[in-house]
Amino acid sequence: MLAYIKGEGLMALDLNNYIASIPDYPEKGIIFRDISPLMADGEAYHQATDQIVQFAKDKGVQMIVGPEARGFIVGCPVAYELGVGFAPARKKGKLPRKTVKASYKLEYGESALYMHQDAVLPGQKVLVVDDLLATGGTIGATTDLVEQLGGEVVGCAFLIELSELHGRDKIKDYDILSLMKY
Amino acid sequence: MLAYIKGEGLMALDLNNYIASIPDYPEKGIIFRDISPLMADGEAYHQATDQIVQFAKDKGVQMIVGPEARGFIVGCPVAYELGVGFAPARKKGKLPRKTVKASYKLEYGESALYMHQDAVLPGQKVLVVDDLLATGGTIGATTDLVEQLGGEVVGCAFLIELSELHGRDKIKDYDILSLMKY
Repeated sequence: MLAYIKGEGLMALDLNNYIASIPDYPEKGIIFRDISPLMADGEAYHQATDQIVQFAKDKGVQMIVGPEARGFIVGCPVAYELGVGFAPARKKGKLPRKTVKASYKLEYGESALYMHQDAVLPGQKVLVVDDLLATGGTIGATTDLVEQLGGEVVGCAFLIELSELHGRDKIKDYDILSLMKY
Repeated sequence: MLAYIKGEGLMALDLNNYIASIPDYPEKGIIFRDISPLMADGEAYHQATDQIVQFAKDKGVQMIVGPEARGFIVGCPVAYELGVGFAPARKKGKLPRKTVKASYKLEYGESALYMHQDAVLPGQKVLVVDDLLATGGTIGATTDLVEQLGGEVVGCAFLIELSELHGRDKIKDYDILSLMKY
């Protein structure tokens, strides 16, 4: 589908123009990269999705998995366009059936993500997506869950990678796509 | 896009077959309707999305709004297919820029949803979506937020409506699409 692009047709947008940078949020010294202007713009959202779709197609992806909640915003249109399913990785108490669990470290303390035991089938080729690759804790837990279920992680895709935080090191066994780097 | 449907081609699936019903969750006497099997199946997810897309097209929708987190799963592929934007309604502390707020009643106490002040433009035609219409508290708060921002709610769409809870009464001014009723 290309008809959605008004004006220049196939001209690519610079997605960086659709990221709001908020200084000192959530705390002093941190620049928060807010994807909401990108999602709010039909053309930018479409273009970002299509880049991930192409990455996924090349790998024969059969299922998309994303952590709550912005991972859903990135992953769900990718799943739709590929005609494959989407499975969420969620915080405690959000999934009603039997789950598997993966813990990960936070700056202070620890958190965990869960997936339904039947969310991914053994041998399924899975693309794991999120909006942001920072320290890699969330995405590492998500790939762990997929592998606990017997799925094959064939790649990880992000809108944004914060290169200085070296999250890439936590998922170095996988092919990684990040559409923007800061 | 129809090619994703294997076998019978245009044959519609019965989406009810993709809802897991969990008795006594989250508490005794409640049957929880779990949409995860529907999302996990590429064909069922595509078909459900396309029904909402058709509803939205007929209304000239320019923006999709959904409450976290399952509203993202329903709304984001609809936005993608229409080539329009998606704006989330979120719980406290999740949005980094200036927000508007709408409170709503829970069985015990009260909760609130927030949207960025620039998430919807005045006059924009908005479709509000969620996975489930129950008592209507969440969706009522979401339509309230859209209208605080000057948007025009042209419809509300759900995968599932729990008819006995009369949530429909809270959004009776809008056209409502629910793909399944229990």
